[in-house]
Amino acid sequence: MQLFHSHFSPFARKVMVVAHEHGLAESLELLPTAAHPVKRDGTILARHPLAQVPTLIDETGRAIADSRVICEYLDTRAGGGLFPEAGQARWIALNDQSTADGMLDAALLIRYELTARPESERSSAWIAAQQAKIESGLASFEGIAEALAGRVDIGTIALGCALGYLDLRFAEIVWRAAHPALGAWYEAFAARPSMMATRPPAA
Amino acid sequence: MQLFHSHFSPFARKVMVVAHEHGLAESLELLPTAAHPVKRDGTILARHPLAQVPTLIDETGRAIADSRVICEYLDTRAGGGLFPEAGQARWIALNDQSTADGMLDAALLIRYELTARPESERSSAWIAAQQAKIESGLASFEGIAEALAGRVDIGTIALGCALGYLDLRFAEIVWRAAHPALGAWYEAFAARPSMMATRPPAA
Repeated sequence: MQLFHSHFSPFARKVMVVAHEHGLAESLELLPTAAHPVKRDGTILARHPLAQVPTLIDETGRAIADSRVICEYLDTRAGGGLFPEAGQARWIALNDQSTADGMLDAALLIRYELTARPESERSSAWIAAQQAKIESGLASFEGIAEALAGRVDIGTIALGCALGYLDLRFAEIVWRAAHPALGAWYEAFAARPSMMATRPPAA
Repeated sequence: MQLFHSHFSPFARKVMVVAHEHGLAESLELLPTAAHPVKRDGTILARHPLAQVPTLIDETGRAIADSRVICEYLDTRAGGGLFPEAGQARWIALNDQSTADGMLDAALLIRYELTARPESERSSAWIAAQQAKIESGLASFEGIAEALAGRVDIGTIALGCALGYLDLRFAEIVWRAAHPALGAWYEAFAARPSMMATRPPAA
């Protein structure tokens, strides 16, 4: 299989964490990308209309975009385990993934605002709204941090990638001080081999 | 159950189409919302950190955000059918949902740009990039329109809601002329009772 990839994309990292958890990383050929919020990557676009990173090309040539779908696809191929079967555990994991991905979407919108627009076109109100979403997510996870311990599923993987992205791109958000339980959870989770193997290079 | 809802939200519409397909619409109490891209709705925020429309509150008081998760949750409660079991049909349906949702995300980003910012802070390059994503999605679905016929799953439901939103908010995108096969598919799909029952009011 091939994966349109970037070492700086937190959504690509989710896919790679899943791959490492299942011992599938060696079966993914990583394709370099030039995806950008305004200038699309024509090579990815030729395979999938979203032209996003990550996009997976499987052995049949089929293109699958969207980290959620790619992660579930890889998990299913490997026999499952990271997407719990239908029941309470599944809805908790998927809902946590949504919250973590929502924090990442907000973080990326701030990043695009600051890197893809001239200063005159930036909106401080828009940035503040995205920051508020990140803060709400952090507070929510802080409240359930004890229940996260021991869970390795798509919810906690997404959360780990979201917190890693804050550390990479938003060092000014000193989130650990106000969220000590979440910080303790992350310290343990980030030590997993799958997380260590997918750490982004220094920004 | 309760659903934070708006008649103008295409993602809330996805949830309601699923509910109607399964005869569950009557079991959802619709809660009015004031969600806005910059001013968050405090009532939803008190239940879920994303403060998004749609957000579902089930009988146990649990809040689930994100149309994808809510739709799968309702489908599972009803015995399934709209999220195919793992296999080719599932990946096709989920990938189509991603593409349709990606078109909607792009459309909403254009809408936010035009409604939540003063004119001086708008970026024509950003808007053009979102329009390009919508166009790529339309072209992709036009290419597979014949294979969509007869499919009623989360992929086609998401696509129907995406096309309906273009008609609601982007009447200037005359998509049917360049995508006649997709237009024909949509005409038939939009006549389903679930789609008729969830049509947004005139903008």
